[in-house]
Amino acid sequence: AIIVYRLPWTWKCSKLLMKFIHAGLNTIAMILAIVSTVAVFDFHNANNIPNMYSLHSWIGLTAVIFYSLQLFLGFAVFLLPFAPVHLRAVLMPIHVYSGLTIFATVIATALMGITEKLIFSLKNPAYSTSPPEATLVNCLGLLLVIFGSLILWMASRPHWKRPSAENAKILRPIGATSEGTEEESTMTNSSNADKSDLRINTEAARKQNIKFDEAGQRSTM
Amino acid sequence: AIIVYRLPWTWKCSKLLMKFIHAGLNTIAMILAIVSTVAVFDFHNANNIPNMYSLHSWIGLTAVIFYSLQLFLGFAVFLLPFAPVHLRAVLMPIHVYSGLTIFATVIATALMGITEKLIFSLKNPAYSTSPPEATLVNCLGLLLVIFGSLILWMASRPHWKRPSAENAKILRPIGATSEGTEEESTMTNSSNADKSDLRINTEAARKQNIKFDEAGQRSTM
Repeated sequence: AIIVYRLPWTWKCSKLLMKFIHAGLNTIAMILAIVSTVAVFDFHNANNIPNMYSLHSWIGLTAVIFYSLQLFLGFAVFLLPFAPVHLRAVLMPIHVYSGLTIFATVIATALMGITEKLIFSLKNPAYSTSPPEATLVNCLGLLLVIFGSLILWMASRPHWKRPSAENAKILRPIGATSEGTEEESTMTNSSNADKSDLRINTEAARKQNIKFDEAGQRSTM
Repeated sequence: AIIVYRLPWTWKCSKLLMKFIHAGLNTIAMILAIVSTVAVFDFHNANNIPNMYSLHSWIGLTAVIFYSLQLFLGFAVFLLPFAPVHLRAVLMPIHVYSGLTIFATVIATALMGITEKLIFSLKNPAYSTSPPEATLVNCLGLLLVIFGSLILWMASRPHWKRPSAENAKILRPIGATSEGTEEESTMTNSSNADKSDLRINTEAARKQNIKFDEAGQRSTM
């Protein structure tokens, strides 16, 4: 869901469709998160294991709560057509930051959960004797870190944003922000020109290179 | 070390001094990391505990290795005066991304280490019975997540960059990049004008708002 706006095939879609994909994938993830959380409590209760005692559970539940807040606010502000452009522009940096931070926190929670599970489950042979199962799951944990790093790389690269129009005019964009990791910009008049890279090469400034990073007008649906 | 470039008092310092503070703090952290790692191996060996079996240790050692690489490359490219401006401009986004990713990974490693330690140390009463010690350490873990989130927020806000000059001219900056989470920009002619926020309010574009985010020329020491 995070990288919906970074995938070339989505650049052909309308802004609204991209938003629906982003919101839909996050809604599916939220449902899965709730089902998983309920399953954990059921498992604990069935096995007489206390709930919510570990750091894993504290941070995990915090992440789920913030994630549901993020989903609700994102839906209300960016998908429903009622929020004014100004409010969207103000909340977009917070939405992007929260999303990426929640994502990183969820990965950290998963790593803690894996650590707990390995310690609790591997008794004979013990986790500390590095049985094949421990090595396999450690590798899965490392892959999780690599996966998270790649997603954060993709999400934070300006060049992975939707493609820029070389001929964009300086005065055309409206309500622009220039946050590096933020997008969600939509033009009302043109579909594919929400980021401009201007390279001004005059005689006086031949070696000067201005990369003009501007996002277009906030979508109003 | 990460937020050196975000603190108002450093904006009065020269670019070189800021770099020395950034590099110095990271060097101190690296020394502490190495001392800690050696201490862990000594502790394990003294107590006949196997080394490098846990996911915590795998990810932790990976982070230390990448951190030392980051420090070495940063020293060679950005502090020593030999690297060309072009190379610095290319490597800066990677340097910033790596630094923040290593930082997040180190926090995740610490959370895994805390989880391990609580499980291993709290036996009577057990961790699962939530003794006061467990609650205290869980709170410390939560604070670690909050600390990490705040640092990442500060590091990724364009407005926390060194202050902009309102009167900066469009054609003045040289070799600019507009990466959101990247700074390290230095003007050779003026000291305090490496980011410009232009708000153009003409009759035709009264409601149009262009935030012009540009970094200045890469420092050459």
